[in-house]
Amino acid sequence: MSDFARSEEIRFQLFDILDTEGLTTRARFSGQSREIYDAALETAEKIATEHFANHNRAADIQEPWLENGKVTMLPEVKRAVDAFAEAGFLKAHHDEALGGLQLPWSVVQGCFSLFQAANVATAAYPFLTIAAGNLLARFASDAQKETYLPAMLEGRFFGTMCLSEPQAGSSLSDIRTLALPDDDGGYRIQGVKQWISGGEHELSENIIHLVLARIQGAPAGVKGLSLFIVPRYRLETDGKPGVANDVQLVSLLHKMGYRGTTSTILRFGEEGSCHGELIGEAHKGLLYMFQMMNEARIGVGLGATMLAHAGYLHALDYARERPQGRHVDGKDAAAPQVAIIEHADVKRMLLAQKTIAEGAMALCFYAANLVDQEASDEGEEARRDAASLLDFLTPICKTWPSQFGPRANDMAIQVMGGYGYTRDFPVEQLYRDNRLNPIHEGTDGIQAIDLLGRKVGLEGGRGLTLLAGEIAACCAEARQVGELAALADALESRFASLRDVTAGLLEQMAQGESGAALANASLYLEAFGHTVIAWMWLRQALVAARLGAGDSSDPDYLSGKLQACRYFFAFELPRVDQLTAVLRHGDQTCAEMRSNWF
Amino acid sequence: MSDFARSEEIRFQLFDILDTEGLTTRARFSGQSREIYDAALETAEKIATEHFANHNRAADIQEPWLENGKVTMLPEVKRAVDAFAEAGFLKAHHDEALGGLQLPWSVVQGCFSLFQAANVATAAYPFLTIAAGNLLARFASDAQKETYLPAMLEGRFFGTMCLSEPQAGSSLSDIRTLALPDDDGGYRIQGVKQWISGGEHELSENIIHLVLARIQGAPAGVKGLSLFIVPRYRLETDGKPGVANDVQLVSLLHKMGYRGTTSTILRFGEEGSCHGELIGEAHKGLLYMFQMMNEARIGVGLGATMLAHAGYLHALDYARERPQGRHVDGKDAAAPQVAIIEHADVKRMLLAQKTIAEGAMALCFYAANLVDQEASDEGEEARRDAASLLDFLTPICKTWPSQFGPRANDMAIQVMGGYGYTRDFPVEQLYRDNRLNPIHEGTDGIQAIDLLGRKVGLEGGRGLTLLAGEIAACCAEARQVGELAALADALESRFASLRDVTAGLLEQMAQGESGAALANASLYLEAFGHTVIAWMWLRQALVAARLGAGDSSDPDYLSGKLQACRYFFAFELPRVDQLTAVLRHGDQTCAEMRSNWF
Repeated sequence: MSDFARSEEIRFQLFDILDTEGLTTRARFSGQSREIYDAALETAEKIATEHFANHNRAADIQEPWLENGKVTMLPEVKRAVDAFAEAGFLKAHHDEALGGLQLPWSVVQGCFSLFQAANVATAAYPFLTIAAGNLLARFASDAQKETYLPAMLEGRFFGTMCLSEPQAGSSLSDIRTLALPDDDGGYRIQGVKQWISGGEHELSENIIHLVLARIQGAPAGVKGLSLFIVPRYRLETDGKPGVANDVQLVSLLHKMGYRGTTSTILRFGEEGSCHGELIGEAHKGLLYMFQMMNEARIGVGLGATMLAHAGYLHALDYARERPQGRHVDGKDAAAPQVAIIEHADVKRMLLAQKTIAEGAMALCFYAANLVDQEASDEGEEARRDAASLLDFLTPICKTWPSQFGPRANDMAIQVMGGYGYTRDFPVEQLYRDNRLNPIHEGTDGIQAIDLLGRKVGLEGGRGLTLLAGEIAACCAEARQVGELAALADALESRFASLRDVTAGLLEQMAQGESGAALANASLYLEAFGHTVIAWMWLRQALVAARLGAGDSSDPDYLSGKLQACRYFFAFELPRVDQLTAVLRHGDQTCAEMRSNWF
Repeated sequence: MSDFARSEEIRFQLFDILDTEGLTTRARFSGQSREIYDAALETAEKIATEHFANHNRAADIQEPWLENGKVTMLPEVKRAVDAFAEAGFLKAHHDEALGGLQLPWSVVQGCFSLFQAANVATAAYPFLTIAAGNLLARFASDAQKETYLPAMLEGRFFGTMCLSEPQAGSSLSDIRTLALPDDDGGYRIQGVKQWISGGEHELSENIIHLVLARIQGAPAGVKGLSLFIVPRYRLETDGKPGVANDVQLVSLLHKMGYRGTTSTILRFGEEGSCHGELIGEAHKGLLYMFQMMNEARIGVGLGATMLAHAGYLHALDYARERPQGRHVDGKDAAAPQVAIIEHADVKRMLLAQKTIAEGAMALCFYAANLVDQEASDEGEEARRDAASLLDFLTPICKTWPSQFGPRANDMAIQVMGGYGYTRDFPVEQLYRDNRLNPIHEGTDGIQAIDLLGRKVGLEGGRGLTLLAGEIAACCAEARQVGELAALADALESRFASLRDVTAGLLEQMAQGESGAALANASLYLEAFGHTVIAWMWLRQALVAARLGAGDSSDPDYLSGKLQACRYFFAFELPRVDQLTAVLRHGDQTCAEMRSNWF
């Protein structure tokens, strides 16, 4: 058993909460079995333990550095990504036609979560490569796929996503990188990209940058963006990397955490000879990129979740071992000290961490399951439903774990006191690593505008309606199960209040008052997130109650699930009321604040 | 003007909110003037800028290290503490009889806050020395004072507080360090102390450790603790440091932040020759130490406050300069970008930081003013009131800024996006530094038990009654001032609810159910903190309204104060309802969770 993750928790999520085994009845997953999925998880845990966890701290202390003009890093990183690739995790979910195993995305994510828990910074290299590969598999031409995909699926070529520029971070419409048409049908790329994770390294034979750029003469804004394949080395006719493709490393960026992942500024085409290949149609680049960004967003949520989970486990171990103080009701100074887990306030901090980590995990795997539904359901309507619901939930999957995961890490430090604050224990690094997650792949504020300004109104509110159906079904079930009936009421009343607020805000936007309606979008996203996580906890409690009524192999674990659900409903869910009150009132305090008043 | 603090904000707190100038009518402060106080603040800002801010980052990168058995650090640290001492800040508040200036504690704290904002880690050395000196001034014998105090007030000797041991962190009753009576009336000290800040360094000629230990044969628990002066070097008859006093550095501890302050494990008396002098009476050590701890707790709160303030100012500067995106209501991609401070969500994060930093600042200076009232009021009853109210508010002064200060730093990073997460900008260090504050000088959980388990019931609830009177007076005044009347109602209803909950919990404790009553003490402390900070904002709003009605020199600043008050009442204060609901219900979810359920 690893100390950074509980694989049995992942199994509970995949096989007890979600019916991942049931996917094997679908054509896409036929011939597969629970045994195959378990074996994949076991392999992942073994490699994560041996090759990822082993250098998590070392790569934080010794982050990548420049040596003779090359980005150099600890040799353990290359061994880790090689082991990952050799075990087939770069291609496990791909079509058999591409050499993949067609494993469900949820199983692949279950495996990947173990790598994130073990070493999120090293896991970022395959993370980006998988995401880039998925984009090519969906939108690139057959010729492009043939050229690039096999090497990416084998781990010979790694991928990146190149969106941000110095003057264009959250505002993608301000991207300036140019694509100048070449005589041969290709393009020459010119521009600077910043915050490019994995933008330069020697881990792979080549790096395939997916670059958003503007074809000369294209319209301003996001509608003028196209997407290009820009390899670090141009390919020879045999597909091997050849001469450098005029992509220069301007500098490495030095972060507070997540240090093992290079973050770079790259200059494309300084010498006018950076070749790029257009993906799909011109001016549709952002649409394609969103495929990758949405996947990355859910992946970021899962990463934040697993860092919270890892911190929770460390704090839990410490709390069970560390004697300190006595029970409040028995203050005999001569009596031996008790383990701190006996103190209610320590239990509170552990429960809070548990509800964050396992609630977020439930959501991320729920989202992964929707990917599987979309890919495998025989009914077209069901596939479309899965896609709509996933699209709707994406900003929540990204943000809630990113916002509350670091809070969980904060509490892990607090449980461990002074020890937690030292660099001799792992929780301070988790706290620093996790702080990136509310920033990259769209800040919390951007996600909030995505949810309220776009997603709730999309397709006539289809996503929200689908979600309402799911929550109602869960609550109907919970009403039959003793104490859970009251929790169902609590959830439904919050969700009703949220829908009510949503209707008001949509009407305000329809009247052209978007500024006022979106002024408190972050509160809206947080309220929505808390409600969705409460739903996730009710789902878990239902299963725990069902399994607990039977002949469970681990009644303590199930009791813990029920208690955590009670905790979330009593201590966390009511925050929704505070947030919806501000939203209902249409408070404009923030919007009306002036720059010169600060 | 410095970039780490706004001294005009400190002046507003000291001279507009508090009547610090009015203190000059008191005998203790006679002959002093606003000009003297301003000059002290100016000197502090100058030294903080030139000698503290200058190496804040450098000392984070290069923390103290061992070289030839000596703790070595950047030479800038010594220059800083020397400049601090030379300017007289170690003794400014002391009695003239001791060579001090008898400046008000609130003015001295105003000055000190600038050093904390500039470099909290270097400021810790004088911080500890001042606190140790204050303890000696109050409880040591005349001979001891004569021996140690002048050197400490001049900065030749520095001080520490030695409470924690490896097996006794929060649980002081488990302290094992022994004091063996010597023939000469002194004691030989034997034991290990851990987490001793400033425990070893070469910044001063000597280090005066104040050590909690148990005289051989003393009772178990905190009632058997005595306090000792243990110098690093024994003093020669001329008062100069002589031979080493058998205090060994076991190791330096390596923290996530606050790196410039050495944190040490010390072994006393390994060779049986560590001499200590008893302070005051035997077995009263904790009582004396609490003098130092209470002062340190308020100082920790002020430090957390100033780190929040510094982060806020950096984020504010960035937000005013950084162009990104456009107004929601005017999405013309060809229009120039606006500064991000124009976005409501960025304003929200800045307002949140402002309310945390300035609300906490108001509280810390209010507490410092109570110290001055206690020291200078001519009425005995008034002095006693000031002491009781200060004692009551101490856990809130320590905890609220420590809990929410890091949240402010978190938002400073978020405003600055990827830049905020890099080590090229100061906010990530502030975030790391500030994370210590909820841990040292009593964790948040310990403060919560102090408030609910001790302070509310002390002297028949005198502290709470006094607070109620203050809040009622403020609300009565606010009811006369337009829109503030509604805020007064909002505050009073929360405070009434809190008193109601308090009565219930006190009754529960009286019935012997302390465990159940204290199970959610942390929520109680947070609810109390939010209520007290709301009161602090109403106080500020009242003054802003009054000054704004006159011929103000800075109406924008006053508008900002009013808007921040509105923000706190609309967005933050309602959290009290969520917390008091849990408390009123007597929820035992945390207490009933079991170790093996996690």
